[in-house]
Amino acid sequence: MKKIRILGAGLSAHFLITYLEAEAAECNWHITVIDRDLSRINRKHFASTTAVVQADLNDSAEIQRVIDDADLVVSMLPARMHLQVALICLQKRINLATASYLSDELRALDKDVKDRDLIFMNECGLDPGIDHLSAMKLLDEIRSKGGVILEFESFTGGLVAPAFEDNPWKYKFTWNPRNVVLASQGGAVKFLHNGQYKYIPYHRVFRRTEIVKIEGYGKFEGYANRDSLKYRETYGLDQVKTMYRGTFRRPGFSKAWNCLVQLGATDDSYQVEGIEHMSHREFINTFLAYHPTDSVELKLRQYLRIDQDDVDLWEKLMSIGIFSDEKIGLLKGSPAQILQHILQKKWSLNPDDRDMIVMWHKIVYRLNGEERIIESSLVTEGESGSKTAMARTVGLPLAIMCKLILNEKIDQRGCLLPISSECYTPILAELQEHDIVFKEKDYRYQRS
Amino acid sequence: MKKIRILGAGLSAHFLITYLEAEAAECNWHITVIDRDLSRINRKHFASTTAVVQADLNDSAEIQRVIDDADLVVSMLPARMHLQVALICLQKRINLATASYLSDELRALDKDVKDRDLIFMNECGLDPGIDHLSAMKLLDEIRSKGGVILEFESFTGGLVAPAFEDNPWKYKFTWNPRNVVLASQGGAVKFLHNGQYKYIPYHRVFRRTEIVKIEGYGKFEGYANRDSLKYRETYGLDQVKTMYRGTFRRPGFSKAWNCLVQLGATDDSYQVEGIEHMSHREFINTFLAYHPTDSVELKLRQYLRIDQDDVDLWEKLMSIGIFSDEKIGLLKGSPAQILQHILQKKWSLNPDDRDMIVMWHKIVYRLNGEERIIESSLVTEGESGSKTAMARTVGLPLAIMCKLILNEKIDQRGCLLPISSECYTPILAELQEHDIVFKEKDYRYQRS
Repeated sequence: MKKIRILGAGLSAHFLITYLEAEAAECNWHITVIDRDLSRINRKHFASTTAVVQADLNDSAEIQRVIDDADLVVSMLPARMHLQVALICLQKRINLATASYLSDELRALDKDVKDRDLIFMNECGLDPGIDHLSAMKLLDEIRSKGGVILEFESFTGGLVAPAFEDNPWKYKFTWNPRNVVLASQGGAVKFLHNGQYKYIPYHRVFRRTEIVKIEGYGKFEGYANRDSLKYRETYGLDQVKTMYRGTFRRPGFSKAWNCLVQLGATDDSYQVEGIEHMSHREFINTFLAYHPTDSVELKLRQYLRIDQDDVDLWEKLMSIGIFSDEKIGLLKGSPAQILQHILQKKWSLNPDDRDMIVMWHKIVYRLNGEERIIESSLVTEGESGSKTAMARTVGLPLAIMCKLILNEKIDQRGCLLPISSECYTPILAELQEHDIVFKEKDYRYQRS
Repeated sequence: MKKIRILGAGLSAHFLITYLEAEAAECNWHITVIDRDLSRINRKHFASTTAVVQADLNDSAEIQRVIDDADLVVSMLPARMHLQVALICLQKRINLATASYLSDELRALDKDVKDRDLIFMNECGLDPGIDHLSAMKLLDEIRSKGGVILEFESFTGGLVAPAFEDNPWKYKFTWNPRNVVLASQGGAVKFLHNGQYKYIPYHRVFRRTEIVKIEGYGKFEGYANRDSLKYRETYGLDQVKTMYRGTFRRPGFSKAWNCLVQLGATDDSYQVEGIEHMSHREFINTFLAYHPTDSVELKLRQYLRIDQDDVDLWEKLMSIGIFSDEKIGLLKGSPAQILQHILQKKWSLNPDDRDMIVMWHKIVYRLNGEERIIESSLVTEGESGSKTAMARTVGLPLAIMCKLILNEKIDQRGCLLPISSECYTPILAELQEHDIVFKEKDYRYQRS
């Protein structure tokens, strides 16, 4: 009997565990879920055969205890906790799988992991995860036919399903809101366009967007991720002329979000003074020049040059309650933390809301002297506010990867990303059974 | 005979040493100038009595050797080197004076310095330096009459004299160009306006300017320093309603500089790829979207929404050569380093150019039930491109302070700033003999 230890019963745990439970009897697995907070586990409906353990996973000795004789550890913990888990897995010779980014510290363990004949699989969720699987499948197919990749673009968005786009931004938080507020921060955006390196400073990112149409779902707007060139080598794209990775929102989102960026309301580098008794309106006023009588609305319009007839933009700003006299309700915080708190009052998913994941790749390639384009798109909707498409698309690839590892279908060893055919072929095939299906268009490129 | 050791023969050394030499015979001082680069010393014309020593001042043992039995060390070294010098001075019981900001590490030595009956005087140049001296004199005078300070504003600018404003920016580098390119970076600007904390993100600082008129010299434009509230406690202004500190340029500078900020050309956080063969024009193009045929000029105009008839702004941008095919001439660099290098080709002071220092304080106070304003302004011009007003206004206050310390006119001990009357009264009086004169206007406040 193989022992699976799942650390952390977070947002995607439902889909991960339900999948593994369904296979457990046939595969002869024993599943244990470990979390500090038993109520988080009990709120979920696991099979009676799934063992539940309470443990403080900040404590190294506790981690040692709970994973002791496991065959595979799945860490759903925050990314910063993975190194400690990995070191213990290495020492105890246990395989490890996560949906988090492979950190440099973890990457440094690669040789030791290989030497011990282990698999530490990373980035096996949605983004990162399904983006790797689906992109590498396309790229490998083109290259196997003798094609040469010229341009690569890839966007992913966690949005709400069209029927539930009931606010002017057509957006709600479906994952970690902090990451949304801090999106594209931490250094200039860098990408490659037609052989030229291009840089966009943070305060311009949300004005350099691209519109993409996906059949049956209308238009999406993409802004650049900070790390467009990150996987150039990983994907074997060193010679590519254009490489651009970004995030999807509905059109108009970025222009309105840019207003918050321009104000400085997404800054996470300092604490705002005196927020204990501050209203939303007063918070916005800290970014506007003092005036004894002019309203916050007028000052903001003038400062950001918002035209009187730009109704769509103004409606978005009004809708998030930033001009309200409501108290913020925090004792301290950076502008970004305060903004997040204000947005969560409006942008939290209702129990009946359904979310939507949209992923899109565009690859320009040359084959037999002809330039062609492949567009590949995934759109999948959630079931409810608790069973989201986001949680499903993060949890399922990881679950299927666990099965592959336990059933010894993965030949590679070391600190891995899911970019080889032994990963993407079986996982993408099985994801189709769970309504995670890519649609492809392959057509001749007409340069205008 | 008292021994003065001057570490570093930098930009202000001429004025510092010439002043001390003039007093040396009468005061019975012996002056030694120490620098790693003897040519820097030999280019200056010191009296034959001034000893010159070559030493590597990065080397702690060398510092120990050259300052061994001094009575006073004057450090003109870069600020980061002061802590090491201070620790040696503390151990050897030698007084220390600098024109640099008092760092937290240095401040931590305060008790030890006091215990050894020593003076470590900091921030005794222009800005910081003369700003402290002149502001504290005004504030103390108002308070001694029973006045209450309501608002405090202070601006300083290192500019070129009106007769030498021969480029559209009316600006040239008269001190460290790197500080000019990085101005207001490193965190949001924070200030206080009518009792409200206000924050400006970096990418907005150069659009939130204030125009100030100084009689006989026309208009200046002030943008906010990052640290407006830094001296609130130091100046005894904890109850003040408005506190704003900034930098002066000629009107129109900030709007044009903002274009460079908006592009991302002042970013110092990453290295630009492939600059070895890059032209100025190609550098600017890295911040603009790719287009097969549109010109860099057109793309920049459109991106930054520069009106066709905004001739003044366009002339400024053209004048710094950013659209030129000239090679940058660097092997590597951040955008900020590249921009500095390009600007230095145009903005370096010619040998015959004269620079100009402008300082302005505005204090609103209540006295006997009446609200009043004091404006105090200093304008002083340099002699030439090598004998600048900047060097003189940095070097002279420090030189006079050295005299005060050596003649035992300073009673305080510890890590000090020049904010007490025993500092500002004699120094400001003597600076007047060197054309460093403040003009004051005191009038009743008419609130509009």
